[in-house]
Amino acid sequence: MLKFDEQKQIDSVKGALALRGKIEEIVDQICKDGFKNICWLGIGGTYASCLQAEVHMKEKSGLDFFVENAAEYLTTGNKKVGADTIVVVSSVTGSTIEMVEGVKKASAAGAKVLGFIDVDTTELAQIVDYEIAYPGNEQLKFFMVADRFMYNAGEFPEYDRYYKELDENLAVDLVEVEKAADAFGEAFAKKHCNDSIHYFVGAGNQYGSTYSYAMCYWEEQHWIRTKSIHSAEFFHGMLEIVDRDTPVTVFVGEDAQRSLSERVVKFLPRVCANYTVIDSKDYELKGISEEFRGNLSHLVTHAVTQRIDAHLEQINCHPMEIRRYYRQFDY
Amino acid sequence: MLKFDEQKQIDSVKGALALRGKIEEIVDQICKDGFKNICWLGIGGTYASCLQAEVHMKEKSGLDFFVENAAEYLTTGNKKVGADTIVVVSSVTGSTIEMVEGVKKASAAGAKVLGFIDVDTTELAQIVDYEIAYPGNEQLKFFMVADRFMYNAGEFPEYDRYYKELDENLAVDLVEVEKAADAFGEAFAKKHCNDSIHYFVGAGNQYGSTYSYAMCYWEEQHWIRTKSIHSAEFFHGMLEIVDRDTPVTVFVGEDAQRSLSERVVKFLPRVCANYTVIDSKDYELKGISEEFRGNLSHLVTHAVTQRIDAHLEQINCHPMEIRRYYRQFDY
Repeated sequence: MLKFDEQKQIDSVKGALALRGKIEEIVDQICKDGFKNICWLGIGGTYASCLQAEVHMKEKSGLDFFVENAAEYLTTGNKKVGADTIVVVSSVTGSTIEMVEGVKKASAAGAKVLGFIDVDTTELAQIVDYEIAYPGNEQLKFFMVADRFMYNAGEFPEYDRYYKELDENLAVDLVEVEKAADAFGEAFAKKHCNDSIHYFVGAGNQYGSTYSYAMCYWEEQHWIRTKSIHSAEFFHGMLEIVDRDTPVTVFVGEDAQRSLSERVVKFLPRVCANYTVIDSKDYELKGISEEFRGNLSHLVTHAVTQRIDAHLEQINCHPMEIRRYYRQFDY
Repeated sequence: MLKFDEQKQIDSVKGALALRGKIEEIVDQICKDGFKNICWLGIGGTYASCLQAEVHMKEKSGLDFFVENAAEYLTTGNKKVGADTIVVVSSVTGSTIEMVEGVKKASAAGAKVLGFIDVDTTELAQIVDYEIAYPGNEQLKFFMVADRFMYNAGEFPEYDRYYKELDENLAVDLVEVEKAADAFGEAFAKKHCNDSIHYFVGAGNQYGSTYSYAMCYWEEQHWIRTKSIHSAEFFHGMLEIVDRDTPVTVFVGEDAQRSLSERVVKFLPRVCANYTVIDSKDYELKGISEEFRGNLSHLVTHAVTQRIDAHLEQINCHPMEIRRYYRQFDY
């Protein structure tokens, strides 16, 4: 299989799950000390992950949490961020300027910052209050933080049972999803490699990944135009520009917002002959209870899109690591 | 001038501003009774207006307020909505199903609902706790509510001076903007009437209107494809698909996020020869103090896009009131 190192991917997810002890230690100490609210701070792809953590918490939690875009925080500000705020951030490079400045501003306002900064020698890694350095798996890291906060608030009593299942099965399950999705990924890439624009639709914890897949993968890495939209919002404008040949892909997850995407799936065949449904339900997660699948839907569809990416990169002769403009000159 | 009834538009804005007495009475009573938080609830275009109210309040306010999408509220829920929550909604038709159900759910959770339902005979108008029926001017209504809450919290001491200027000048100022923008609107419509896709970028209180202009006007009413993006997010993916001929329009406002859009304006000429800047600063608002212009930027750019719409509708022989699918069949 193209661009697929099974053992490396298994180790990557297992290593991320193994961070849980450290996460629990930090979150438990924060809860013991007391806190007022939780701010998920991000920009671009990390902002999208924040949206996923937010919708995940909304299903269960009465805690005070919110998402803030780092650039908006630096200009408009947010008076909720202050002493007793816990800011959670993630950064692969540790050098994204909005994140560095955003963390400094939040710290100056009295907030404590928990950072997943992959490169722990960067300035950003040095200035956060709690640093965990481990590559990739951003959503998994964020959700482990969210889940521990909810567990401590008595909102996630199934926590131990849930993470036992993840520790034992998730890493292998996700590579099995990739294997099961490879033929689909190749066919999809062949069909859509010349799209002048591609529409991606999703809801729930799929919305953040839909937004990020469209912008951070197709636009940034494949240089193919996209629009992403929330499944609920699709019906309030965007539907009008869909016709027979419009390429539309709907990501359907298994969390509480599943019905919003199902509505799009029901609508599309009436007006469009070029749509695709990527439904996490179509993929087995051995050893994971039905009740927990909703929390993991975005990891399943990400495993599917990994297969699209691998083939699209090859078909289009477009290395995903090259950038036209991003960080190529000052702007 | 095409599709322009000066007196009618002046009367419309003056009438909206004249709702302030009623709004103050309702909000003052709510503040006297006490409340916990404010939920701006919307979907589609009204969701976009909620985002504008939110960013407007963020600049000044320490109150507890947030935006909720009605369809997401109906599925995922939001535990912040409960007794002592004030929900603010707006609806032209009063029949948008997500809004009717969303208001019912919020009421059942104990919230009080303030509704600007234009048709006060509809079910939605009947089930809100406080109803104000007056057509159009949604942003103005929402901002008057936000401003009164902030005034009562001691966060808007310039309130009386500000609204005196608006009452005396805004209605005429906005029609003057339309007149000043008409030639531009015609040229823009001629240049972009055949765009296969058009990109709209904005930040601050321009973001909600950018999102809504792209989706509720170009997609829904002109049937032209668009993508809208926040100016800050533009640099984290979308920039890569911009080339010489890509049609991009940046809306630049005068609130705290102006610098985020200015950054896009500075970047574009390096890589694109088909971009347009619509800057509220280019239009006079006689009798409005410099310090208040940021609050009104989105009304200025809306006056400009009204002129684009009038000409685009005529050039493309596409009546803005027709819909392909929206409410044409069950979905």
